[in-house]
Amino acid sequence: MPRYKLLVEYDGVPYAGWQRQANAPSVQQALEEAILRFSGEAVPTRGAGRTDAGVHATGQVVHFDLTGHWTGLRIRDAMNAQLRPEPIAVIEAEPVPDEFDARRSAVKRHYIYRVLDRRAPAALEINRVWDVRKRLDIDAMQQAANLLLGWHDFTTFRSADCQAKSPMKTLDRLEITREGDHVLFGVSARSFLHNQVRSMVGTLKKVGEGKWPVARVGEVLEACDRKACGPVAPPGGLYLVQVDYGSGAEQLGEDPAEDEA
Amino acid sequence: MPRYKLLVEYDGVPYAGWQRQANAPSVQQALEEAILRFSGEAVPTRGAGRTDAGVHATGQVVHFDLTGHWTGLRIRDAMNAQLRPEPIAVIEAEPVPDEFDARRSAVKRHYIYRVLDRRAPAALEINRVWDVRKRLDIDAMQQAANLLLGWHDFTTFRSADCQAKSPMKTLDRLEITREGDHVLFGVSARSFLHNQVRSMVGTLKKVGEGKWPVARVGEVLEACDRKACGPVAPPGGLYLVQVDYGSGAEQLGEDPAEDEA
Repeated sequence: MPRYKLLVEYDGVPYAGWQRQANAPSVQQALEEAILRFSGEAVPTRGAGRTDAGVHATGQVVHFDLTGHWTGLRIRDAMNAQLRPEPIAVIEAEPVPDEFDARRSAVKRHYIYRVLDRRAPAALEINRVWDVRKRLDIDAMQQAANLLLGWHDFTTFRSADCQAKSPMKTLDRLEITREGDHVLFGVSARSFLHNQVRSMVGTLKKVGEGKWPVARVGEVLEACDRKACGPVAPPGGLYLVQVDYGSGAEQLGEDPAEDEA
Repeated sequence: MPRYKLLVEYDGVPYAGWQRQANAPSVQQALEEAILRFSGEAVPTRGAGRTDAGVHATGQVVHFDLTGHWTGLRIRDAMNAQLRPEPIAVIEAEPVPDEFDARRSAVKRHYIYRVLDRRAPAALEINRVWDVRKRLDIDAMQQAANLLLGWHDFTTFRSADCQAKSPMKTLDRLEITREGDHVLFGVSARSFLHNQVRSMVGTLKKVGEGKWPVARVGEVLEACDRKACGPVAPPGGLYLVQVDYGSGAEQLGEDPAEDEA
């Protein structure tokens, strides 16, 4: 059976998240229904990141198998036609080797968290940013962020309902930049624990607004205690922007039970 | 009576436009009700640009008079508190001299029109861009746009219900740039006819997709005939981004009956 890979963008607001659920709309369900409508085949899809309710994607990667043979362009256009009026778009589609697994083959996931950092609330960007009314100290947040880089037990930054077997993860990148009134957190790792990015951003905001000293972020990391975490940042500021895949030579990772950031 | 100036951002989608109407929500009404709630005074507001239904603003300028004396910071914060949950934000507020008139004192208005120029439809930017599925030729559009610069009779690019006394306007700037999958039209003039920017963008798109030669834009301008215009671009791509005011020494313009682009 031919396998296909999709690059998908979506607005997370109307969905209970990526993952199909019994009684709530999901991105996965919308995609699977669109596939059924154009191909006549009811097949499961698998996404690289299990984004939570309200979390957006500009670069979600998805795979699925069909008995039919299609070109990538045909799949892209047919799915976009069938997806209307859902706020989900297939940016690219292509046939891939059977070994490709959107989730297990991923070698790195990249998220961006967007903060609107001004006194006035968001208007055009409601549910697209976290509007933080205080001016954040970028340098202090970056110093604190650097304490989180590398291989750590991220229990502090892990949702209570995270299903991952191990809290050990390697955080490769956490870069904080300002663009006018926006503060962007660029975060990269092979995989993440449930709510990890939003937990880290909410904690770093404490530092940015001067309520916590930089060193406290190292302390809460070492505490390995969920109660030590700052408030979890709201979902509307989070975007899954890119998933990287290797040459195929690297060993497949274990299925990360959670890779929602 | 002290006069106050506001810098206002809004999402145009839920409104019938800037201007107060009998049976539809408007930005003007929402602002006037917020002023009433915090100050107890029912006063009219005046905006620099009469944006149409669905048109956004990041830099609308508004003035109004109150008997009470307030600081700009107090007005900004009080209005933002009262405006919730409307997608309208007061970015700045300040007291201004009595002579200041948001509409008549404006010496230049700047709009941006945003096109999403990719095969896949908009998902995260529904109602924030015009999604044009064909790759547009920026150079050809810019050549055509240059034919519109300067002082002209813009009857071709004027809505049938435009109330301006004269169709003569000076177009100062129409710059087209590409940023990834986005094409931005930056448009500046002292004032505009009703639907002028959207009519120009819709016409230039014809050139960008290769359906019209560059020279035809000059011909339709000279025709001074509304029927010669290309299709009017949808409102969701249009943003009033900035309004410039002079030193106060320049003569006040006539009240532009229409300055919605």
